[in-house]
Amino acid sequence: VTGVLAELAAAVGPANLVTDPDLMRGYLVDWRGAHVGRAAAVVRPGGTEEVAAVLRACRAAGVGVVPQGGNTGLCGGAVPSADGGEVVLSTTRMRRIRELDRENRTITVEAGAVLAAVREAAGAAGLMFPLSLGSEGSCTIGGNLATNAGGAAVLRYGTMRELTLGLEVVLPDGRVWSGLRGLRKDNTGYDLKQLFVGAEGTLGVITAAVLRLFPAARSRVTAWVALPDPAAAVELLGLLPEDRLSCFELMSAESLDLVLAHVPGARSPVPGRWPWHALVELTDSRPEAALAEVLATVLERSPVADAVVAPGRVLWALREGVAEAQNKEGPSLKHDVTVPIGRIPEFVSRTDTALRAAVPGIRIVSYGHVGDGNLHYNLTKPRGTADDEFAARAEALATVVYDIVAALDGSISAEHGVGVAKRDVVAGYKPAVELAMMREIKALFDPGGLMNPGKVVFPAGG
Amino acid sequence: VTGVLAELAAAVGPANLVTDPDLMRGYLVDWRGAHVGRAAAVVRPGGTEEVAAVLRACRAAGVGVVPQGGNTGLCGGAVPSADGGEVVLSTTRMRRIRELDRENRTITVEAGAVLAAVREAAGAAGLMFPLSLGSEGSCTIGGNLATNAGGAAVLRYGTMRELTLGLEVVLPDGRVWSGLRGLRKDNTGYDLKQLFVGAEGTLGVITAAVLRLFPAARSRVTAWVALPDPAAAVELLGLLPEDRLSCFELMSAESLDLVLAHVPGARSPVPGRWPWHALVELTDSRPEAALAEVLATVLERSPVADAVVAPGRVLWALREGVAEAQNKEGPSLKHDVTVPIGRIPEFVSRTDTALRAAVPGIRIVSYGHVGDGNLHYNLTKPRGTADDEFAARAEALATVVYDIVAALDGSISAEHGVGVAKRDVVAGYKPAVELAMMREIKALFDPGGLMNPGKVVFPAGG
Repeated sequence: VTGVLAELAAAVGPANLVTDPDLMRGYLVDWRGAHVGRAAAVVRPGGTEEVAAVLRACRAAGVGVVPQGGNTGLCGGAVPSADGGEVVLSTTRMRRIRELDRENRTITVEAGAVLAAVREAAGAAGLMFPLSLGSEGSCTIGGNLATNAGGAAVLRYGTMRELTLGLEVVLPDGRVWSGLRGLRKDNTGYDLKQLFVGAEGTLGVITAAVLRLFPAARSRVTAWVALPDPAAAVELLGLLPEDRLSCFELMSAESLDLVLAHVPGARSPVPGRWPWHALVELTDSRPEAALAEVLATVLERSPVADAVVAPGRVLWALREGVAEAQNKEGPSLKHDVTVPIGRIPEFVSRTDTALRAAVPGIRIVSYGHVGDGNLHYNLTKPRGTADDEFAARAEALATVVYDIVAALDGSISAEHGVGVAKRDVVAGYKPAVELAMMREIKALFDPGGLMNPGKVVFPAGG
Repeated sequence: VTGVLAELAAAVGPANLVTDPDLMRGYLVDWRGAHVGRAAAVVRPGGTEEVAAVLRACRAAGVGVVPQGGNTGLCGGAVPSADGGEVVLSTTRMRRIRELDRENRTITVEAGAVLAAVREAAGAAGLMFPLSLGSEGSCTIGGNLATNAGGAAVLRYGTMRELTLGLEVVLPDGRVWSGLRGLRKDNTGYDLKQLFVGAEGTLGVITAAVLRLFPAARSRVTAWVALPDPAAAVELLGLLPEDRLSCFELMSAESLDLVLAHVPGARSPVPGRWPWHALVELTDSRPEAALAEVLATVLERSPVADAVVAPGRVLWALREGVAEAQNKEGPSLKHDVTVPIGRIPEFVSRTDTALRAAVPGIRIVSYGHVGDGNLHYNLTKPRGTADDEFAARAEALATVVYDIVAALDGSISAEHGVGVAKRDVVAGYKPAVELAMMREIKALFDPGGLMNPGKVVFPAGG
C-alpha cells in the first residue's frame, strides 16, 4: 500500500491525499454511525483525469477503491470495509456545474455537486430539478446516481435513472467513457449508462452527468387526508388527476403520533385520531390553476374520513418530521419496500398482523411514497422493552417483512439500495439467473474485484 | 443444420417449423423491401420454454438465431443475413395479454402481442398505453422493446424504455430470467432489463414485459401553427405548458407540399405558404379542461405566423401523411436524428445549406418529433434527376448530415435503431471506449455470436 500512496499523491497532489486518522475519520463511518470501516487513505481527485489516474494506480497495486460522495447513504455502500487496505475516493472536490441548457432543459454537473446546489442552479434559471431528499444539503449527484435515488416526486418525474440523459464514467481500468449526451432519443446501441446508475460504484466511478430539468410549478396545493385504511388511500390515488399529482404520501397513525410527540409545535391538521393519513400534493405549470377546487371535487367522491386543504408546503413538516421523531423515540428497525400499488393494503394488513403477533406492543411506523407503491415500514420497540432485546430480533422481524414483500412480488429495497447492509438478504430473494448475470457483469467490468469491494454483488458460493 | 431442424421441430411441434421457401418468404425481407436474407428455417415457439429449447438447440449446433416480431423495423434488424444458415425465431404466436392490473396501472404482455392489441386492452380498462406508431397494427411489443421504440408521445411519456417496468428474457444459453416485476422503485442491484431494451435481440430474446399504463386523456386540442423558422418552433415549445403538452411535431414546407400533392383531400389549415409548420397537441385528465384557451394564450405571446386550433385529432392526418406522400414522390434518403433541442435551428440551417449546395434542387422533407429534438431528415431527389443517380450519392449525403449531427452532440439514430443498416456508420461516430464496452457485453452474453448475428455491434477490427 505504501507504494501506491506515493502514486496517488502524485496523481491528485499531496494536499488531496489524506492519511491522518483524525482527518480520515468522517470518511470511514456513515452518518447514522451504523457502518464503520478503515482505510489506507482518502484520495480527493479534482477532475476526471485524476480519477482515472487513481483507478489505474490502485488497479496496478491491487488496492480496492470505495467511491464516496456526501456519505449520506443508508446501506453502508460508501463506507470502506474493516480490513484497512482500501482507499476512499471522495468526489467532493469535483462539484462544478459545467453547463445549463435552458432550451434543452438539461444541466451538466460533476459527481461531487451537492443536490441542493443543483436544485438552486436550476431554480436560478427558472427551471426545476425534481429530485429532493432530506439529505439534499450534503448528498451529491454522484451518490444520487450510484443509488438511483428516489424520494417523493418519483410518481411524477421518475427516479434518478429517468432524470439522467448522459454520463461520464471512469471504468475500473482507468478508461474514461464520455457519454455526456443530452438527448431524449438515442438508439445507437446498448444504453450503457443504465449499468452505472444504481450500481453503487461497483462498476466504475461516475464523474459527471447530464440531467433533465423541468419548468418550475407555478401553482401548488396540498391536502392532509384522514383515511380509514390503506385501501382508501389506493382508491383516492386512482381518482387524483395524474397530470397534476406531484406527491402522494401515506402515514400510519403511529407515525403521526410520534411527530406530534416529538416535533415542537406539530399539531394534527384534522380533529380526532384516524388510522391512516395521506399527504397529497398537486402542482400546475399555470400560475392561477384552480387546484384547490380540483382537489375538493376528488375528495368529495373519495372514501376519506376528513381532509384539510392548504396552499404551499405548510403540511409537509408533519411528513418530513417522521424520521427525526422516530429517532427521538429510540432505535428502530427500518425496511424500505415496494409492492405493486394495489397490494399495499394486503401488505400492510398481513405484515402488521404478523408483527403484532410476534411482538405484542410493537409500534409500526409505516409511511412513505405510496404513489410509487413504496413504504418505509419501520418498527419501534414496545414501551418497556430494552433496546438490545429488540435489536436482537432485527433479522427475524426483517424476514417476516421481506417474506411477505416477496410473496406479493415486491422489492425489499425500494430506494435505499444494497450496499453491504442488504447484499446478502437481497441475494436470498433474487432469481439465481439474475444473481448470476450480476456476478458476470461485475467480473467483466472489474475482474480484480477492486471497485467498492464487497458491495451490492453477492459472491458465487458466498 | 439438418440435425438442429429435427430438434427444433420437436421443441415447437412440426407445424411451427417452417422450411417451405414460399411460406418463409415473408420472414426474409423487411416491409420496405430494403433488406433481403435467407434462412434455414423459421421457428415459431408458442411460449417461453419453447424459446429456451430453441436457443439451447441452436447454441449446441452453432446456428444463428434472428428474433423477429412484426418485421416492421427500418434498419434490417429482424432480417436474417444472406448466408442461409440462420434460423428466424418468430414471436408472433406468443401474443397473450397475461394480466392487466388497474390499480398498479400495468399490463403484462407477451413479446408477440401486437401494439394495437395492447393499446386496445388498455383502453378497454379505461387506461392508455402511450406508445403509438404508424405500424401499430402489425408491430409487436417485443420489437418495440428490442428497438426502444419512440414516436410522437415521448416528450410526455418517454420511450419504450421508460414505459417498461419488468421483463422476461431467454438468454442465449437458454436460461430463463423471470424479471416481470411491476414496480416503480426497485434498487436491489443492477437494472438488467435495461440491457435488453434497445439491444435488438443481440443479447437474448425478450418473451414478456410489464408495461406502464396511464389514465386516458379526457380533453384534447390540437393546433396547426405556421412558423417563420425552426427557432420560432423552439421558442413556442418552451412556452407551452409541459404538464399538458402531449405532442410537438415540426414539418418543413416541402413536407407539407408533398402531403398536399399526394394525400387525397388534404388542404393546408392556414392560407399561404409558410417555411415551417408545427402540430401541437395538448391533453388533460379533466373532461372540461379549457385547453383551447390555454393554447390561444400561448400562441398570442409566440412568434407564430398563423395558427388554427382544432378539437380532437383532425389535424393529425397531415402529419401522418408525410411518409406515404414522400414514398409516392419516389425513392428517398432517410435520416433519423436527434440533437439537443436548442440546436435544432442550427442543425437545420447548416444541413439545409450544405445539401442544397451539394445537390441543387434537392427537396428536404424534414419533419418529426421536435419536442424530443428528433427530426426525420429525409431527402427527395431534384425533379428530373434519375433515381439511381440520386441513390448513388446516399452515403456521401448521409455523411454530410451525420457529421453535422455529431458536431452538435446529437445522435445519428434517434428511434429507428441500428440493425445492419446503421451498424458500421454508428461505429464511426461512437467513442472507442463505448464500442469496446458494447463488444465486451455482447461477448459476455453471447460468446458464440449466435444471437442476431451481425446486428448492432460493430466487430473489433471489423
